[in-house]
Amino acid sequence: MNIKPLGDRIVIKMVETEETTKSGIVLPGSAKEKPQIAEVVAVGPGGMVDGKEVVMELSVGDKVITSKYAGTEIKLDGTEYTILKQGDVLAKLN
Amino acid sequence: MNIKPLGDRIVIKMVETEETTKSGIVLPGSAKEKPQIAEVVAVGPGGMVDGKEVVMELSVGDKVITSKYAGTEIKLDGTEYTILKQGDVLAKLN
Amino acid sequence: MNIKPLGDRIVIKMVETEETTKSGIVLPGSAKEKPQIAEVVAVGPGGMVDGKEVVMELSVGDKVITSKYAGTEIKLDGTEYTILKQGDVLAKLN
Amino acid sequence: MNIKPLGDRIVIKMVETEETTKSGIVLPGSAKEKPQIAEVVAVGPGGMVDGKEVVMELSVGDKVITSKYAGTEIKLDGTEYTILKQGDVLAKLN
Amino acid sequence: MNIKPLGDRIVIKMVETEETTKSGIVLPGSAKEKPQIAEVVAVGPGGMVDGKEVVMELSVGDKVITSKYAGTEIKLDGTEYTILKQGDVLAKLN
Amino acid sequence: MNIKPLGDRIVIKMVETEETTKSGIVLPGSAKEKPQIAEVVAVGPGGMVDGKEVVMELSVGDKVITSKYAGTEIKLDGTEYTILKQGDVLAKLN
Amino acid sequence: MNIKPLGDRIVIKMVETEETTKSGIVLPGSAKEKPQIAEVVAVGPGGMVDGKEVVMELSVGDKVITSKYAGTEIKLDGTEYTILKQGDVLAKLN
Repeated sequence: MNIKPLGDRIVIKMVETEETTKSGIVLPGSAKEKPQIAEVVAVGPGGMVDGKEVVMELSVGDKVITSKYAGTEIKLDGTEYTILKQGDVLAKLN
Repeated sequence: MNIKPLGDRIVIKMVETEETTKSGIVLPGSAKEKPQIAEVVAVGPGGMVDGKEVVMELSVGDKVITSKYAGTEIKLDGTEYTILKQGDVLAKLN
Repeated sequence: MNIKPLGDRIVIKMVETEETTKSGIVLPGSAKEKPQIAEVVAVGPGGMVDGKEVVMELSVGDKVITSKYAGTEIKLDGTEYTILKQGDVLAKLN
Repeated sequence: MNIKPLGDRIVIKMVETEETTKSGIVLPGSAKEKPQIAEVVAVGPGGMVDGKEVVMELSVGDKVITSKYAGTEIKLDGTEYTILKQGDVLAKLN
Repeated sequence: MNIKPLGDRIVIKMVETEETTKSGIVLPGSAKEKPQIAEVVAVGPGGMVDGKEVVMELSVGDKVITSKYAGTEIKLDGTEYTILKQGDVLAKLN
Repeated sequence: MNIKPLGDRIVIKMVETEETTKSGIVLPGSAKEKPQIAEVVAVGPGGMVDGKEVVMELSVGDKVITSKYAGTEIKLDGTEYTILKQGDVLAKLN
Repeated sequence: MNIKPLGDRIVIKMVETEETTKSGIVLPGSAKEKPQIAEVVAVGPGGMVDGKEVVMELSVGDKVITSKYAGTEIKLDGTEYTILKQGDVLAKLN
């Protein structure tokens, strides 16, 4: 992975719907078209962000649930990624 | 439960209308279609959230009243949950 | 009362218009349809709320005047209550 | 006066237009319909309000000029009062 | 002057267009109808305003340039004044 | 220059388009009608502004690039100036 | 480069689409018309910005991904640049 997010940002890669179904998680309604479950592929350094200390709680490989419209999408080597702030991650899947 | 909310978030599961009626609580008007009473099923660690220290006051099993439109809904193993911030919980039912 | 408000929230019960008239207080215009005078029936613990220390100045039994649209209404055992933040209470009636 | 404002709020009573004219003060345009000059009839305790220390600079009996749309109107024993925050008072008339 | 502004507010009196022209200052376009140059006639005490320490840098007699729509207009003994916050004063004319 | 800006404000004078072209700088599109390059003609004292310490980094004579719509325009002795906050200056030209 | 950004701002120069494609990065949809990948050509000093300490993490020569609409465009010697705040940079490309 050659993208290093700044500050409290992370880079995530959406998890395929099939994989999602296997783990027993189904997202309701319109969310089916755009799953909110993703895998963390890069984590920023945290530190002082907008005058507030942010400790990064996520690590590469974590499965997370995010707000559907959070972050900015980019495409790298044919794969779509989303860059968003850690605070926009709702929960971690254990 | 395999969802771990981040920061000051909790995961709640709506309590069925029948159960609600038994405990003598009825929600008025349009609220009947979407009860605001829920059970806490997962609690985030709290700590520094947006530069402010948040202590979690809720525990798994607590019955709570929430703002109707607060949080994000997800479906897990066929059950609907809502992930919301502790500050969006209005009151605890003892 | 089996509702315990969180943080700086309180639970109030509207005072009937008749009682209001007896104490010589009449609310003008459209406010007549929805009196702003209420009795406090439950008080949250206060403490750190959104990063700020809040001391609860109200007690159960206090008569208060509130902003008409403040808070969230719920119904409990056939009685309507409103859950609102102490800061939305304008004044106490002595 | 049996209303005790909370926090940094005060209760004011509009001064009649006649009295206003006598003191040589005339309010322009549409303000004539709703004079901005008032007398303070009750003062809150001040203290920590929304995380900030507020010292009350006004006393009962002070004549003040206020923002026309500031505060909430109530009627008590046939007289209209306005409950507003001290910070919405523009100036004191000496 | 019998108006004492509260907090970080000042009272100003617009300077007549003629006087403005004499000092070589002309305001462009629609500003001609409502000159932004004024004389300070009263200064509040400053101090803690909305949780922030404000030191008053203006004195009675100062000529100032203000944002055209800043403040609240009042009429006293036939003269129009504007009450505004010191922070809405753009510059002092020496 | 007889204008002294307050707080963190500066006064700038737009640089003529001809001069701009000579130094090899051309502004794109609609910006041509209203150049964003200006010379600083007066600098406020800085200090505590809205509760935050501001150090003035600009000096009279600096050439700066500003946000097109930042600040308030005034005319003095036939010349147009703009009063704006230092934070609205994007960059200095060396 | 004769532009020195103020505070926490940086100056970036968009990287050509061809170069972008070579490194295997393609931007989706409408983003193709306005690539979000850029090279840093000037970095401000950082320090206290709007009352918060900002440490500059970027250096001249860094390749960055930015929010598409962030910053202000200027043209210098025929080349387009964008001046934006470091916080609007999403990630660095290693």
